[in-house]
Amino acid sequence: MELKKILEMRSEESWQENLPSLSIDCVIFSFKDSSLRVIMVKMKDLDFWGLPGGYVRKDENIDEAAIRILKNRTGAENIYLQQFYTFGNLNRSEKVFEKYPDTLWNKQRFVSIGYYALADFSKVDLIIDEFSTACEWKSIDDLPDFMMDHKIIFDKALLTLREQLNNHPIGYNLLPEKFTMPELQKLYEAILGKKLNRGNFYRKILRYDILTKLDESRKGGAHKAPDLYSFDLEKYNAALKEGLKGSW
Amino acid sequence: MELKKILEMRSEESWQENLPSLSIDCVIFSFKDSSLRVIMVKMKDLDFWGLPGGYVRKDENIDEAAIRILKNRTGAENIYLQQFYTFGNLNRSEKVFEKYPDTLWNKQRFVSIGYYALADFSKVDLIIDEFSTACEWKSIDDLPDFMMDHKIIFDKALLTLREQLNNHPIGYNLLPEKFTMPELQKLYEAILGKKLNRGNFYRKILRYDILTKLDESRKGGAHKAPDLYSFDLEKYNAALKEGLKGSW
Repeated sequence: MELKKILEMRSEESWQENLPSLSIDCVIFSFKDSSLRVIMVKMKDLDFWGLPGGYVRKDENIDEAAIRILKNRTGAENIYLQQFYTFGNLNRSEKVFEKYPDTLWNKQRFVSIGYYALADFSKVDLIIDEFSTACEWKSIDDLPDFMMDHKIIFDKALLTLREQLNNHPIGYNLLPEKFTMPELQKLYEAILGKKLNRGNFYRKILRYDILTKLDESRKGGAHKAPDLYSFDLEKYNAALKEGLKGSW
Repeated sequence: MELKKILEMRSEESWQENLPSLSIDCVIFSFKDSSLRVIMVKMKDLDFWGLPGGYVRKDENIDEAAIRILKNRTGAENIYLQQFYTFGNLNRSEKVFEKYPDTLWNKQRFVSIGYYALADFSKVDLIIDEFSTACEWKSIDDLPDFMMDHKIIFDKALLTLREQLNNHPIGYNLLPEKFTMPELQKLYEAILGKKLNRGNFYRKILRYDILTKLDESRKGGAHKAPDLYSFDLEKYNAALKEGLKGSW
C-alpha cells in the first residue's frame, strides 16, 4: 500500500494516542568491521533515508517511548540509550508532507527529542515496518542523503559521543565482550574522526588501568594471534565517574 | 486577580498561539558575593517556587522561545543560553492544576525543554509578571521548596555546568570583566560543590594560560589590594575547544 494511504488510515488513531507536537528520533550506533555504523530507514515513496523515529504516547514517559521505538526497530532490549538534544526549528519536518491534507497527523510541526543508542551489532535484528522499504546499518563513512534535518540530528549525536568518550561507557557498549587493542583503537578513531598514534594510544589506555588482559588470543589470520582484552567494569566505571583525563 | 481567573482568561489565546504539549523552563544562573544564584518565581496562590518558564509559539524556533522567555524575566538580551535536557515524565506538571477545568491550557501534560543561562548579576532587572507574586535571585546554598519537577531540572542544570566547566565559557559568562583570583576560585568551588586547595587551583589555572593579569588591583578593604585578572578570550576559547585537561 502506498505511504499516503497508510498515513491517512493511521492519522485519526495517532491523534488519539500520542502527544501532539512531539516526536522522537533515534541515532542507533554499532561498531562492526572497524567501522562505526548507524541504522537508517528508507520511507516508502520518498527518496531519502531517515533516522528511525516515532511519537510519545499520552500514557508513557519520553524515555519509555524511546525504548519502545528502539525495540520496534531492533528487536533488542537493554540497549544503552541516552537523550542528547531536542530539535525544534520551524520547518524542520513540515515540508515532507506538504501535499498531504492539513489534518494529517504527520503534517504537524514536530519538535523532536534525539536519543542515541549504543547497540551490539550481533544482537540486532533490523525490522522493516509498514511505512518503510528498507532498514539498514550504514557506515558513517558512506552515508546516503538524509531527509528533513536528520543530518543535523546525526551530527549532533556523533559530536555528543565524542564529548562523552571520557565519561560514558561508550567503548564497553559498542565492543563485544572480548576485543583486541587494534579494535579498541579503531573504535576511538571512528568516533573521534581522526587517526591516532598506535604507541601513544596503547600507553594511554593501559595507564588508565581499565582493561583486563585475557589468557587467550584471537585465533585465525596470518599474523601472530593478537591478545584479547575486556573491560574491568569496576575500574572502568570508577574512572569514567572521575572522567578519563586528557585528550586523545 | 487570582491565578485561576487569569489562567482561564488566557487559556483560549494560549491554545491558539502555542504548540501544545511543550513548555520551556529556564535555569538562570549568576554569581554574586561568592555565591552562585538562580532566578526563582513564586506563582500566585501557590505555595511553591518554580523556575521561570513559558511556551513555544507556533511561529518560532525553540531557541527563540527560550530567548524571549529569558528577556521577559530579566530585561536582558545577549545572555549566554544553552539547551541542556528535556523533561518528559508522566505527571511531572499535571497535578498542580488538578482542580482546574480539563480544557485549561495549563492542565495539559507538558514535556519541558530545559535551558540554562549564565547572566551578569548587575545587568539583570527581575520582572514580576501577572502570574507571579515574586521573582528573586536565590543562593543555591539556600533554596526554597520547588514546585513540580523543578528541583530535578535545577539539579540537572547544575550537573551540566559541572560537566561543561572545562569546555564551555562558564567562568567568562558568570564573572565581571575584571575579577580577582579568589573570586574565580569561589566560582569554581560553587559550581563543583567542594572546596579547592588554593595553591593547586592557582597553579592549575595559571598553567592553562587563559588569564591576563591587569595593571590594576581591587581598591578598598583592609588587606593588600588583590590583583585583578581578565580572561584572554582568544586563548580561553582555544583552550576550551580542546577541553581544559584534568579534574579540579
